[in-house]
Amino acid sequence: MVIVGGGFGGLYAARALRTAPVDVTVIDRANHHVFQPLLYQVATAALAPSDITAPIRWLLRKQPNTSVLLADVQGIDVARRIIHARGASRPIEEPYDYLILATGSRHAYFGHPEWEPLAPGLKTIDDALEIRQRFLMAFEQAEACDDKDERDAYQTFVVVGGGPTGVELAGVIPEIARNAMRADFRRINTRRTRVILVEAGPRILPLFPEDLSGRARRDLEALGVDVRIGAAVTRIERDAVFLGETRIAARTVFWAAGNAASPVARSLAVPLDKAGRVLVEPDLSIPGHPEVFVCGDLAAVFEREGALVPGVAQGAIQGGRTAAGNIVRLLRDEPTVPFRYLNKGNLATIGRSRAVADLGFLRLCGRVAWWFWLFLHILYLAGFRNRLSVLVQWGYAYFTYQRGVRLITARGSGSLLRR
Amino acid sequence: MVIVGGGFGGLYAARALRTAPVDVTVIDRANHHVFQPLLYQVATAALAPSDITAPIRWLLRKQPNTSVLLADVQGIDVARRIIHARGASRPIEEPYDYLILATGSRHAYFGHPEWEPLAPGLKTIDDALEIRQRFLMAFEQAEACDDKDERDAYQTFVVVGGGPTGVELAGVIPEIARNAMRADFRRINTRRTRVILVEAGPRILPLFPEDLSGRARRDLEALGVDVRIGAAVTRIERDAVFLGETRIAARTVFWAAGNAASPVARSLAVPLDKAGRVLVEPDLSIPGHPEVFVCGDLAAVFEREGALVPGVAQGAIQGGRTAAGNIVRLLRDEPTVPFRYLNKGNLATIGRSRAVADLGFLRLCGRVAWWFWLFLHILYLAGFRNRLSVLVQWGYAYFTYQRGVRLITARGSGSLLRR
Repeated sequence: MVIVGGGFGGLYAARALRTAPVDVTVIDRANHHVFQPLLYQVATAALAPSDITAPIRWLLRKQPNTSVLLADVQGIDVARRIIHARGASRPIEEPYDYLILATGSRHAYFGHPEWEPLAPGLKTIDDALEIRQRFLMAFEQAEACDDKDERDAYQTFVVVGGGPTGVELAGVIPEIARNAMRADFRRINTRRTRVILVEAGPRILPLFPEDLSGRARRDLEALGVDVRIGAAVTRIERDAVFLGETRIAARTVFWAAGNAASPVARSLAVPLDKAGRVLVEPDLSIPGHPEVFVCGDLAAVFEREGALVPGVAQGAIQGGRTAAGNIVRLLRDEPTVPFRYLNKGNLATIGRSRAVADLGFLRLCGRVAWWFWLFLHILYLAGFRNRLSVLVQWGYAYFTYQRGVRLITARGSGSLLRR
Repeated sequence: MVIVGGGFGGLYAARALRTAPVDVTVIDRANHHVFQPLLYQVATAALAPSDITAPIRWLLRKQPNTSVLLADVQGIDVARRIIHARGASRPIEEPYDYLILATGSRHAYFGHPEWEPLAPGLKTIDDALEIRQRFLMAFEQAEACDDKDERDAYQTFVVVGGGPTGVELAGVIPEIARNAMRADFRRINTRRTRVILVEAGPRILPLFPEDLSGRARRDLEALGVDVRIGAAVTRIERDAVFLGETRIAARTVFWAAGNAASPVARSLAVPLDKAGRVLVEPDLSIPGHPEVFVCGDLAAVFEREGALVPGVAQGAIQGGRTAAGNIVRLLRDEPTVPFRYLNKGNLATIGRSRAVADLGFLRLCGRVAWWFWLFLHILYLAGFRNRLSVLVQWGYAYFTYQRGVRLITARGSGSLLRR
């Protein structure tokens, strides 16, 4: 059988099949699993890419029934049960008897794909490196600038989207600018850095209870973030963002506002929802193909009437395990079971020492929530080395206010340096 | 005054001017200083790029007389005393009264520039990432391969050049393949990985005494490296390297064989040597321009009759300090002093537990030399965070035989995945 995708869904499905009587092939176009909840820390130069990644092969090395294939899946032929992919040395046609599809989502621009080069999103390590480069280059450009208005525009960062990623990105930027960067620049005052968080809905962190949303907003404002709710982006230009008719002069925009499911879903020829997610059966299989399962961000699963399972790590992990379990049941000629999502809670950090946590039975905020967040993330980080390295980096960043990974790679900066 | 280049030469020149009565501007096209002696560890996935780099701004943040400019210098107008560069937001014309030029060298292909895409060299972080990607992708391609000969070619690595970089690269590959990679692959036997080190001269490590060269060669051979001396590369193709008439089927070639000075030297309009280095005066100034100094790999300085100061970190550090000192002397109307190179010795590691060290008064080899190498490199690594992080990574790699940073970035692997 084949698992497509080495994110949370695919990885935990593979692990759940460790002792199952099947040969498992995991296909991913990257050689590494990414611990996505910490991507924003790579994007803001706090952690190195290798701190939050581990080779998929290495994570599954102790499962003799599992092999890993580096390939970019182009489509699934569900009638012939074949996967079409680009491989490392040639095109691949990989047959399957059972399939788990967990290729996740990319960011979406609500019908404005032309905004992507101006406002990069944050899903992969490459996205994080792109954002890190723009973030660091903005300070370089401000420092090199003679015009006050242009300099102000370089010192203004707009983050679009008030979900956890947007809140986490917006929350760390002021602290980096004020503390880590301050001594390094001679012409600009890095304390004048502006961060604007834009959310189209009525409040930030809409998945959280209202009181935690409010607390998060006050925490962000205390850090100096300008939070604009009910504000929809209508236009993005090279040096400005428009909220309705209001023009904000800003040279750097980050996008954390929308998701669209991976286009591989379309090749299944089954009904999709508006965001391109597969409308799966309760057991996560697809209509008419009980041998094909979809989980994680690629699946639209209803937790209860009208409420989708959120596109978070826990949803993907639990979905992957359910899909794997159902394949084992099919092998034993047992009936499959429906997916039941256990909401373990929601967490978002705000800057370097605060967070909000909704555990259902308990709501935490401030410093307590931050320590809880730290503990959980260290616990879940895949692989021993990463845990230790991340602790070292966080300890360093926390106690010195310095950022450890302020690296603009030459290829990147070279292309940005102008004649 | 201006320093061009934030490598060892430029950085130590800037530090030497910390208390001098001058305004110093350091210009580099990268935002970071690279600890070049450990680049091969990034190239072989042992260390992360951020472990061996630090922002130049950050390294110089406590020098109020020093500012840093991110810009790619295109040429020097020595008559008008102006530097032409591409800046972060616009072209730059930076005037100077005194200048230290320390832009280093790139690898050279002995009149075969067409070899560069087939055999990348190792000078910058981007070079190291390119080599890391090819190194890791070779195993992926071998695993995906159905043809035995093609698989063998993917499992064969040729390193051209028997200096310290070539020896260090060649020495770590067999150990990674045999230990760190072994459990991860299902189809290939990573222990069958071949490494061939090619040196055109009569012995490897020509800057070392003959007995240490011999010991290094025996150590490499004990690790399984096929050392070919007196063997000149005559041709490189996509799937083979030719030594004279001998064809070696190999898909991955790394170049550590030759240097050419940075082309900025040509704009000085002074005599250069064959490798493009500036033939400087004994005080490191250039003929006819006592206000312009050149140091590091860009300068051709004679230690004694016929013996050039080698292009190593110590040569650049000492040259940078001499150039800085001479500018201070000129400001005080004192005569400049000639550069005296103090050879502190030569070091090269072989694999994960051996090294050779020539300290002049003492020659070390084997495990003792390796511990000495470790101590020295930790000591010299710029910045506290890096030291600690590198120790963690090394400790991990040493005791588990695992490699920590086996990351193929999506952009890279994407372009290598084929239809």
